[in-house]
Amino acid sequence: MSQVSVMTSKSLLGLKGMSREEITSILDRAAYWEKHPSKVHQELQGKFVANMFFENSTRTRFSFEVAEKRLGAQVLNFSAAVSSVQKGESIYDTVRTLESMGIDAGIIRLKPSGVLEHLASHIQIPLINAGDGNNEHPTQALLDLYTMRKHFGYLKGLKVSIVGDIKHSRVARSNLWALKEMGAEIRFCAPEPMRAAELADHVQYVSMEEAVTEADVVMMLRVQLERHEESMFGSAEEYRLHYGLTAERAATMQPHAIIMHPAPINRNVEIDDEMVECERSKIFTQISHGVPIRMAVIERALS
Amino acid sequence: MSQVSVMTSKSLLGLKGMSREEITSILDRAAYWEKHPSKVHQELQGKFVANMFFENSTRTRFSFEVAEKRLGAQVLNFSAAVSSVQKGESIYDTVRTLESMGIDAGIIRLKPSGVLEHLASHIQIPLINAGDGNNEHPTQALLDLYTMRKHFGYLKGLKVSIVGDIKHSRVARSNLWALKEMGAEIRFCAPEPMRAAELADHVQYVSMEEAVTEADVVMMLRVQLERHEESMFGSAEEYRLHYGLTAERAATMQPHAIIMHPAPINRNVEIDDEMVECERSKIFTQISHGVPIRMAVIERALS
Amino acid sequence: MSQVSVMTSKSLLGLKGMSREEITSILDRAAYWEKHPSKVHQELQGKFVANMFFENSTRTRFSFEVAEKRLGAQVLNFSAAVSSVQKGESIYDTVRTLESMGIDAGIIRLKPSGVLEHLASHIQIPLINAGDGNNEHPTQALLDLYTMRKHFGYLKGLKVSIVGDIKHSRVARSNLWALKEMGAEIRFCAPEPMRAAELADHVQYVSMEEAVTEADVVMMLRVQLERHEESMFGSAEEYRLHYGLTAERAATMQPHAIIMHPAPINRNVEIDDEMVECERSKIFTQISHGVPIRMAVIERALS
Repeated sequence: MSQVSVMTSKSLLGLKGMSREEITSILDRAAYWEKHPSKVHQELQGKFVANMFFENSTRTRFSFEVAEKRLGAQVLNFSAAVSSVQKGESIYDTVRTLESMGIDAGIIRLKPSGVLEHLASHIQIPLINAGDGNNEHPTQALLDLYTMRKHFGYLKGLKVSIVGDIKHSRVARSNLWALKEMGAEIRFCAPEPMRAAELADHVQYVSMEEAVTEADVVMMLRVQLERHEESMFGSAEEYRLHYGLTAERAATMQPHAIIMHPAPINRNVEIDDEMVECERSKIFTQISHGVPIRMAVIERALS
Repeated sequence: MSQVSVMTSKSLLGLKGMSREEITSILDRAAYWEKHPSKVHQELQGKFVANMFFENSTRTRFSFEVAEKRLGAQVLNFSAAVSSVQKGESIYDTVRTLESMGIDAGIIRLKPSGVLEHLASHIQIPLINAGDGNNEHPTQALLDLYTMRKHFGYLKGLKVSIVGDIKHSRVARSNLWALKEMGAEIRFCAPEPMRAAELADHVQYVSMEEAVTEADVVMMLRVQLERHEESMFGSAEEYRLHYGLTAERAATMQPHAIIMHPAPINRNVEIDDEMVECERSKIFTQISHGVPIRMAVIERALS
Repeated sequence: MSQVSVMTSKSLLGLKGMSREEITSILDRAAYWEKHPSKVHQELQGKFVANMFFENSTRTRFSFEVAEKRLGAQVLNFSAAVSSVQKGESIYDTVRTLESMGIDAGIIRLKPSGVLEHLASHIQIPLINAGDGNNEHPTQALLDLYTMRKHFGYLKGLKVSIVGDIKHSRVARSNLWALKEMGAEIRFCAPEPMRAAELADHVQYVSMEEAVTEADVVMMLRVQLERHEESMFGSAEEYRLHYGLTAERAATMQPHAIIMHPAPINRNVEIDDEMVECERSKIFTQISHGVPIRMAVIERALS
């Protein structure tokens, strides 16, 4: 994915190739919105934004919807489960149809990886990627960076460990590209079958002990037990034993280090129940930051 | 459920323990709203209300949504069938997530009984119970009381019969607590397997004949044939024969008495088709009253 | 369906019986709205419109929702898949319930044919038919007429071929009634099992060759392979061979002729992929016109 395509008509398809300046400007604008929460603004008065979720997601869709409504936009919600995609309508035709109806921007979540760029190139309105397969989830990574920057005051040199199913994680990939661009030191930790071969040149894998004890940020990924991990790694108990952020492991983190997770959480699988809302956990803070980040991204798309 | 918990942060979890003064103040405020229907008000301008239905309901969700929008609020709709609750996200995490996004109040419907109080105690925003298992459905009972008070001019001493599956009815329970507090005389009528053992000290069971002929209000409950009643009582025909408000039975009601039902209706099971919109039926009037009652309750939660 | 019923309280149940003047006035008002797209108007400020889809449809529901919101209305969305219709609530009770809640107008899509008129006669608020079985889909035909009139400047004498499964097509029927009233020359083309016996007196069937070569407008209908056509006609390939608008066939169209389709499209079944967005195709233009047409129809219902 080239830088050009990422920027097509103010679309946000991914963070790979996005410059430090561009990332910083989004984070700064989000900081503005976080300080001006006051309810419903007029920036997008009269604009229509469609949330097109070809894969279900309560959390992400709600975060976008709150952001859109706080900006004063009109919102249309579409989720594939109740759509004519069931009748065989293609994704392209659905998006093109919404564009024809006069939608000003589209938020899109897709199961397949790598079709979004092609799609965006045939559509005039800006598209914002809300997660495409295991490729990218740029607004999640932006809110993660926002959370880190807000907590530590800087990103450059920050040591970030991402632990879990890297192979299937769009969150890991988007964080990788953006954190590297911002000068953070990023490491992955994953059992062999959950590693991503194509990322081998970009990042180092470390042991669970190193991932936990030598990081400023320990970011745990969701184990998608309902999809593939069970066959890849064994039981949830076994996963927790080797790669879960248990209370014992969390006690070995550096005093100043924080815990992050993109949610939703499998309590007592990748992270122990008691750590979810402990003092060093930023999990629900991350969710709070999702709204101003998405306000910044949507505003940028429509400006 | 203690009085304190019911009132936590202006939540409305149930009517058990709510005082006569509090109930009256809600009914009075609903009367104000009924007289000022004019479309969209500014009271909740810029506030976000989430309708979180972990059990589907068109009717109740729409009634809340109309109330929210008439108050000028921004509305988020969530129903479990299309949510990541499917992915194993817990109810608590979902509500906590919405709270983190800046929602100002939540309307919640749950299948399990008795988890709502615990949930509300871990959440800062006010929650309004839209029906939790067979425990309570406070806004339904409030609109029922509103309908009775509006029709008769008083509640004290009013004779109310509730007929049907008391055991599984949150509507019966919420009406019981509120009507008793307001000084009404309430009786239940139900076949043995549909009676609620734990309510035995609070209310008297009467025969179908007495329930119909000696009441000012005959409130029929929905028979949930798709759930459990068929095995509990036999066929729909048999139920109608013994406990249905047939045209014949309705003819034995007192001249001034009214018919109520929380809807949706099984026509020709618990009530004959021709009685649904007869002169003494208040069924669709009840539905109309749901909007001002919910406006009053939501306004109270956010004031 | 008589003219009187069609007009009941500004409902729009079908185009059969609607006068040339009435059709023209809707098309003219849509032209006004198309020229005044600017975003959100105040015409329906404070009005509530419910989209009641007892049969799923992304495209049509979104088009109505955009139209409603552009007019400033509050919108309630209902689709049967997540409704208590599942619990056996009748269509009448659902619509009557929404009416009791103070909805000002309802958009309704239904699977069964011929129940809408009866329904509308028992409801006070205006209803707009968004497709009822194989009976009518009036707003689709109005946007089709709008598209033709805008392109050619007139409808009288225009030669329109409609090709495909006439028997099950509400689009074909609504176009038939409206185009005849406007003085267009309409022909159908369909294999024997897809013809509608009851329309035999109203329209002539022609060969595929004639339908394509002698028309100003070639309107292709969607083949509903998932429903019944496979057994009626054979495979998709066979259908395309005899009744598809292939690139070869399209080349035999008159130089000025246009292609239309109500969408969603089965690419390479009833129409070749490369024809969908070719220069003479008006398919996405039709979709664009759906919004101003529906604005005109909803405004008319509520004026």
